[in-house]
Amino acid sequence: MKIAVDAMGGDYAPDEIVKGVELARDAYSDLEFLLYGQKTKVQPLLQDQTRITLVDAPEVIAMGDEPVRAVRRKKNSSIVLAATAVKEGQADAFFSAGNTGAVLTAGLLIVGRIKGVERPGLTTTLPVLRKLDQSSFVMLDVGANADTKPFSVIQYAVMGQYYAQSVMHVDNPRIGLLNNGTEADKGDQDHRAIHDALAQMPELNFVGNVESRELLNGAADVVVTDGFTGNATLKAIEGTALSMLKLIKGEIMSGGLGGKIGAGLLRPVFHNVKAAMDYSQYGGAVLLGLKAPVVKTHGSTKAPTVKNTIGQIRELLKAQSVQQLGSYFDQHAEQMATIKETLK
Amino acid sequence: MKIAVDAMGGDYAPDEIVKGVELARDAYSDLEFLLYGQKTKVQPLLQDQTRITLVDAPEVIAMGDEPVRAVRRKKNSSIVLAATAVKEGQADAFFSAGNTGAVLTAGLLIVGRIKGVERPGLTTTLPVLRKLDQSSFVMLDVGANADTKPFSVIQYAVMGQYYAQSVMHVDNPRIGLLNNGTEADKGDQDHRAIHDALAQMPELNFVGNVESRELLNGAADVVVTDGFTGNATLKAIEGTALSMLKLIKGEIMSGGLGGKIGAGLLRPVFHNVKAAMDYSQYGGAVLLGLKAPVVKTHGSTKAPTVKNTIGQIRELLKAQSVQQLGSYFDQHAEQMATIKETLK
Repeated sequence: MKIAVDAMGGDYAPDEIVKGVELARDAYSDLEFLLYGQKTKVQPLLQDQTRITLVDAPEVIAMGDEPVRAVRRKKNSSIVLAATAVKEGQADAFFSAGNTGAVLTAGLLIVGRIKGVERPGLTTTLPVLRKLDQSSFVMLDVGANADTKPFSVIQYAVMGQYYAQSVMHVDNPRIGLLNNGTEADKGDQDHRAIHDALAQMPELNFVGNVESRELLNGAADVVVTDGFTGNATLKAIEGTALSMLKLIKGEIMSGGLGGKIGAGLLRPVFHNVKAAMDYSQYGGAVLLGLKAPVVKTHGSTKAPTVKNTIGQIRELLKAQSVQQLGSYFDQHAEQMATIKETLK
Repeated sequence: MKIAVDAMGGDYAPDEIVKGVELARDAYSDLEFLLYGQKTKVQPLLQDQTRITLVDAPEVIAMGDEPVRAVRRKKNSSIVLAATAVKEGQADAFFSAGNTGAVLTAGLLIVGRIKGVERPGLTTTLPVLRKLDQSSFVMLDVGANADTKPFSVIQYAVMGQYYAQSVMHVDNPRIGLLNNGTEADKGDQDHRAIHDALAQMPELNFVGNVESRELLNGAADVVVTDGFTGNATLKAIEGTALSMLKLIKGEIMSGGLGGKIGAGLLRPVFHNVKAAMDYSQYGGAVLLGLKAPVVKTHGSTKAPTVKNTIGQIRELLKAQSVQQLGSYFDQHAEQMATIKETLK
């Protein structure tokens, strides 16, 4: 299995990306890498080139670049070259910590969609906080599309199911529709129609509507939503978790308790909590519905997260989830066409 | 100023509602109350009937009742009778901790909209957690409408501005549009159009798009959004805050640290944090855009929150914010018609 890596994307690129690739190479003997970046910068960072082929990519797509224009114009950028390698079959997956919009655009325009998939869905893994037992759930779309058609949400349910099965190893994942109440008739016309369509798909373990209040309590293994609501919900969870962590830390330290306990004793507590919330350790965000795994991690990604994320990509490849999704949409083309017609 | 109170709504009704009304009566000598409830149940709870008139309401709208049907059929319920008193000018505002949908429906159908307002917006106050200095922001619509037209979001900005000025005493409130990025061109077509329309209203201090990640950091004083996204965002914030509180508490207690510190020493820390997150102390959720303040608090509301919320209603009445909003939409009828046309 060969993974095309963008060495130039992210706040700590290329150093931490290269380090992370070397960690992954050492951990997984069945992986090879095509590493795309400015040769003069990346070459000196490589300790050992075993199973890593460095490919020169003289151009760089910056964090602030307008995504579609950048992908169209910067043909020799690490993002465009890495995505092209996947398209041409030289690599099996594409990984980047760079400009999110550009990664999504390159995935959509260069790697391309699985036949039958209308829109890819950006999929992220979040922890179930009820107990720190490492259980988690996936949510999609969290922002690949600002304007989502109801039919796409149906396809997200199918994609999410395969992802939960193959990467998270959940047997019969519970699929929930993010809505503004749990009753079947909640939401606007689109959400009621999506609910009813999902309820009629026997191959899905659809548990009905879920509210964003219950997500971290594990209301479902796969939460499907339009990209706009999913993005707002994900960012609200992130922002609130960070704010609460700071607030509680501040209260303990300033209330005199900090002195009593000692900052050193508190550190592991907050470290554990932070780790629980750090969903990037679960493998970054995957753009599902494409002909190969395209995975994007936070811009602030460092080497250990690069390694973990590559481990998740390896799971995706081993499970052949793209091929499985391809067969699914192939075999269910008629059913999908009927549902699409119903949801118009 | 006279407030019509639903004594029968909420998990602790009528006991805690009656207690809260008596607390408010004692705290604010300029308030009178019309208290609606089953006389046989409520009368024995009243310690002192000064400035409180008990009105018998033999029917009760339960938490699980279908809202529109309940409001149409249960003409002698506390919710319908209290809303009717406001409509007929016998009271100046309506307060309930009962069935949210029924309260919103009674507000919309019985109290009625301000002339020129398309849809009322459910408005809630949330704390800025960056520092525990009691600063806060308002967000609307958080769920009165599942299907929001772009034009309504423009009107929410106007309503939110008046609310922030009159109740929160913020001079020139910063108004932000909840979107999936801060740049002006973010979001779907509707959000871009809303952004551009808000940017062209000189009477608003519009600060542009805000992301849900930054809300608790105080990104804006007034956050406007469609009711579906607003509902998902609010519930994500609530759910995450509760989960984080539980998680951190659990980590401290189970990690052996709990024994060192002692649960008693930790209690005030978590009490402070909980209080900061308890936005019901900021006055419940107000349905803005109606001919009188209609205010709904959590079902779990107890007497002190009832009292605080009534204090906020008093602020709304003293500031004559409904009359001011009425004049605004009257004087800006032409401008509103133009914006509505543009947003079609």
